[in-house]
Amino acid sequence: MPKIKAIHHVAVVVDDMEKSLAFWRDALGIELHELRDVPAEKSQVAFLPIQGAEIELVLPTSADSGIAKYLAKRGPGMHHICLEVDDIAGMLAQLKQKNIRLINEEPRLAADGKQYAFIHPEATGGTLVELYQI
Amino acid sequence: MPKIKAIHHVAVVVDDMEKSLAFWRDALGIELHELRDVPAEKSQVAFLPIQGAEIELVLPTSADSGIAKYLAKRGPGMHHICLEVDDIAGMLAQLKQKNIRLINEEPRLAADGKQYAFIHPEATGGTLVELYQI
Repeated sequence: MPKIKAIHHVAVVVDDMEKSLAFWRDALGIELHELRDVPAEKSQVAFLPIQGAEIELVLPTSADSGIAKYLAKRGPGMHHICLEVDDIAGMLAQLKQKNIRLINEEPRLAADGKQYAFIHPEATGGTLVELYQI
Repeated sequence: MPKIKAIHHVAVVVDDMEKSLAFWRDALGIELHELRDVPAEKSQVAFLPIQGAEIELVLPTSADSGIAKYLAKRGPGMHHICLEVDDIAGMLAQLKQKNIRLINEEPRLAADGKQYAFIHPEATGGTLVELYQI
């Protein structure tokens, strides 16, 4: 049976990266591991690891991206939670069998080699959930 | 210096506990540790631990609570992220010194003896953040 192993990250959409870092990094004192441009997702992402998990601050860099539209509609705040799973293909098969609505029916491959897939918020009770296999 | 030690939990507001458990517990296979009535917060809370952290599903049990009003306004979904800190009083003092707007200026004591305090979402870039000292 595929198993959820950990909360991998919580992604937060921000509208001002410097202001957000002034809180998460400077006020709370969480180390900024990396500030990375991610052209494939039309965003800039700040990675702030906390003991095996991390906060990811996501700033849209183009108005036509999904994340920019989310920001325009909902305002800044938590965007999704990512759970690490030991067998993503097995988990997606299990979810499909239970009629859980998926955004990605098959695992997708990130630039860094990780496999990921999103579950539709309609199926989870309103939360966008990402699965990650490392 | 006070230090953020871990992501303690992510709280998710739900409008149907059974339907939410059908996803988080039955479809994802995360163990339900406890389903607890919390009269002080006018809610029922499901605790689903994942390797040191947990997902907390929160169902309002009264229409006049803060969480019920949040649900009515925003719909179900992620409500707050809770960070464990080694010295909550020290962290709150540090935040005040940096003019971070707090909901609780002083640590509050939960029924189980933990100290907690909420930071205002206005100060964090739109995310409600709770601090916990265990």
